[in-house]
Amino acid sequence: MAYSHHDLELSNLKEKLLRMATLVETNLTQATEALIQRDDALARSVRDNDDAIDFLEKEVDEQAIVLLSKAPLARDLRFIIVAMKIGHDLERAGDEVTGVAKQALKINQQPDAHIHIDIPRMSSMALKMLQDALDAFVTGNAAQAHAVLPRDEEVDLTHKQVQRVLISYMLEAPANISHCLALLQVSKRLERIADHATNIAEEVIYLLEGKDIRHAGPQNPQ
Amino acid sequence: MAYSHHDLELSNLKEKLLRMATLVETNLTQATEALIQRDDALARSVRDNDDAIDFLEKEVDEQAIVLLSKAPLARDLRFIIVAMKIGHDLERAGDEVTGVAKQALKINQQPDAHIHIDIPRMSSMALKMLQDALDAFVTGNAAQAHAVLPRDEEVDLTHKQVQRVLISYMLEAPANISHCLALLQVSKRLERIADHATNIAEEVIYLLEGKDIRHAGPQNPQ
Repeated sequence: MAYSHHDLELSNLKEKLLRMATLVETNLTQATEALIQRDDALARSVRDNDDAIDFLEKEVDEQAIVLLSKAPLARDLRFIIVAMKIGHDLERAGDEVTGVAKQALKINQQPDAHIHIDIPRMSSMALKMLQDALDAFVTGNAAQAHAVLPRDEEVDLTHKQVQRVLISYMLEAPANISHCLALLQVSKRLERIADHATNIAEEVIYLLEGKDIRHAGPQNPQ
Repeated sequence: MAYSHHDLELSNLKEKLLRMATLVETNLTQATEALIQRDDALARSVRDNDDAIDFLEKEVDEQAIVLLSKAPLARDLRFIIVAMKIGHDLERAGDEVTGVAKQALKINQQPDAHIHIDIPRMSSMALKMLQDALDAFVTGNAAQAHAVLPRDEEVDLTHKQVQRVLISYMLEAPANISHCLALLQVSKRLERIADHATNIAEEVIYLLEGKDIRHAGPQNPQ
């Protein structure tokens, strides 16, 4: 089957999203390293890379609008809409990562408080969710997208646990309060990155199955 | 000039967004009241109303996709895309409001700590930004949308000030830590509601002027 000009434009859109995703993933790894290794230079490089992510989102949007103006077929229409939504979620995830890097710079100015919490594990979980959601998008694997969804709750629970530990640190030693508040923000931002990965997985499911599963009720009713 | 079927569909989309906006605005007022008046019943009604907002967002999305599949004119295409984006921002703002109500319920369980901070003023500022951004959308007033943008920074500054005051309360009396953390989250959520109002204003400007002003660089470089 020969590729039409239109197919090429859609794959170009897909390729732009993958470049965005790679940048977000690299930034997430670097921001976490910057925090753990107390490395200011690494934290600063994250903030610079975020501009490229923002720029790509604009490009995705512009290209999508051009494609929409060409009266696409129903299947392609859905792809273009989903591409815009994924672009938006990646841009938001990128902002959260930049926020992590900013907190790392703040924390690195203070002496090491030797506070041990689950930040590196949360970061790995969020990263893996992003990677799997994007993989599912590229390969058209709905099962892989579905498998991302329940992991969001695991990240939420870890965030709540981190919160509890940090509050106990604050109560023990009020001198640690500003350090702990910065770590609380990091944890919250990682939790939000997992939310964006979940949104992307939901968008991929909508693309592949035509089902809008947002706000479909809690997965684990309590 | 007679209205076409297509015009009616666009105004139906607009009307749905206005219903969403009214719900978000009502909820924001109620969530703030619930916090100030320590009123659990009011906080709970906020959480219930949020379902209606989520449902309307889905309807906006579905209707937008049907309209996009009918090969709209360039001007209408932009309107439909912007409507989806505004719907998404209203839904996110609604989630933040629900978060405020949730924190109010948490705070109301504790004795009144008589902590006086700028939360009511922040809430009014965010509400006014939302109202003005939506007004600009309805009346097609670009100047009104532009006027929303600089107010985001005012809200950011107030949030930072609230943060500082709350940290000083925590240092003074560690017994207040969990109360102060809940108020910190409220302040952060109000700041995010102002962010969504700013996004909506930017989307209205894009609709009216065709300029994408997102990520155009800081308004007040530091």
